Formats: sequence, structure tokens, C-alpha cells
Amino acid sequence: MAKSPWTFTLLRFMAMAAAISAAVVMGTSHETITFFSVTLKAEFYYIPSFTFFLIAYAIAAGYSLLALFVPTTGLLSRWVVIFDMLVAMLLTAAVAAAGAISHLGKKGNEHAGWLPICKQVPKYCNHVMGALISGAIALLLYAMIVLHTISTKL
Amino acid sequence: MAKSPWTFTLLRFMAMAAAISAAVVMGTSHETITFFSVTLKAEFYYIPSFTFFLIAYAIAAGYSLLALFVPTTGLLSRWVVIFDMLVAMLLTAAVAAAGAISHLGKKGNEHAGWLPICKQVPKYCNHVMGALISGAIALLLYAMIVLHTISTKL
Repeated sequence: MAKSPWTFTLLRFMAMAAAISAAVVMGTSHETITFFSVTLKAEFYYIPSFTFFLIAYAIAAGYSLLALFVPTTGLLSRWVVIFDMLVAMLLTAAVAAAGAISHLGKKGNEHAGWLPICKQVPKYCNHVMGALISGAIALLLYAMIVLHTISTKL
Repeated sequence: MAKSPWTFTLLRFMAMAAAISAAVVMGTSHETITFFSVTLKAEFYYIPSFTFFLIAYAIAAGYSLLALFVPTTGLLSRWVVIFDMLVAMLLTAAVAAAGAISHLGKKGNEHAGWLPICKQVPKYCNHVMGALISGAIALLLYAMIVLHTISTKL
């Protein structure tokens, strides 16, 4: 961290950008289709895991912004390392939960009697997939931030 | 880590025990009910997230056993810190994915047309819930291991 502050700052900027992108793409996931006289709506907040995903990535984006202003040495920097790890775990949970439901939406589960829904609302599913990809990139960048800190400070 | 090796070893033992327990409880989650002439079966491997949960916790348990034999100083101990973090993230993903599907099984989702299944197979759902609780304890212990290392070594 102290060795290469510019690379590290860039890594944080990229993680923040990816987190904002993931939150925005998830938050704009919706589709309305009309089938004869039946109107079918799909909103991201219909699925609790997708709402959790948006909140988690919004927290990560806000935290990333704050962390940019913390000096790389001193007591506060130790807290940043701990929070980096907690944010990485939060994002892992968000991607995993949203990913599990997204997979269900695409494939369904015949044993549980849950039908796939992505054929009915393909735009919605693609939008969620975009959020997941952006979220996975942010998560990877966060993992790199934590691993970089561990490898240079420990 | 070097300051209190016994406490740390105990923490690892507890994490390993909780991980084994989570994997075993998930792996034994099944129920068969007969409704008139219709037989309904529920197995953990019917849900991909539950299979992922079992594999993740089996990996964590195996890794925890190996990590017990790694000395607390030296190059190998640095790798253990990195693997501890990766295992904590793996367990977070496992709990989140299985938790999301488990929540769906209990509550269903009317928007997606996914009905709750726990009223039909309550024993199965309770078993999965047991695995999730044990898994959450193992995850908490892993987070403590990583935070302990960060706070003592950084």
C-alpha cells in the first residue's frame, strides 16, 4: 500500500466505478410485457436478493469513496484493511445470493416446481446478468485490494 | 497469531468442527412424503446452491485440518493468511447462495410464480436451516481468524 500508492488508488477508483455500475445496472433492471390482455412486470425489487445486491454495492461504492481520503499509514489505515475485508465479504454474499436466484430464473428447478422466467422477461434477465458481471469485477478488484495489503503489510 | 497460539488453534478447531457439522447436516438433508399415491422427494442435491454449500464446507474443513499443522511464522504462514481470507469468502458465498434459495423455499416469490415448498417438506427445510446455522457459525469463526491475524500482524 505504502509502496505503490498510485496503483492502489487506481485500484480503488476502478473498484468504486465497478461497484457504482453494478448498483446502477441492478437498480434499472425492469421489464413490462403484455401478453394478450395480461400485463407482466418484472422489477429488481421483486426479488429480495437483488435488493440486497443493490444495497451492498451502494455501501461498497460509498465506502470506496471515503477510503480514498484515508492516509496509507497510521491507526486509521488498519481499520481500512479490516473494512476492506468486510466489504469484500459483503460483495461476495451479494453476488452469490443474486447469482443463485438469477440461475434459478434462467434454468428453473423442476424438483421444486419453480419454472424459469427468463424466456418471458429476457431484457430483465440480461440486465441482471450485466449487474452480476459488473459486480463480479468489483468483487475481484476488492479481493485484489485485500490480497495486495496482506502481501505487502504482513 | 504468534501471541496466542493456543487460543488460535482452538479457534481453528472450532471452525473445523462447525464446517464439518454444516457439511454433514446439509449432506443428510432429505425427505420423502407420500400424498395419496403421489410420492414427493426432496434431496439436497436437487438444489445446485446446496451442493455448492456442501462442497465449500468440505473444502473448508479439509483446509482447516491442514492449516493446524502450519507453523505460525515463516513464509507458509503468509500463505495461510491469504487462504484464510479466500476460505472466508468461499463460505460467505456458500451461506449467501444457500440462504437465498432457502428463503425462497420458505416464502416463495409470487412475482416470479415460485411457490414455497417448506410446508410440503418441513423436515427437509429444517435440516437445511440447521446446516445454514452451523455454516454461519463456521463463517463467523473464520472471519474472527482473519480479523485476529490482521489486528495482530498488521
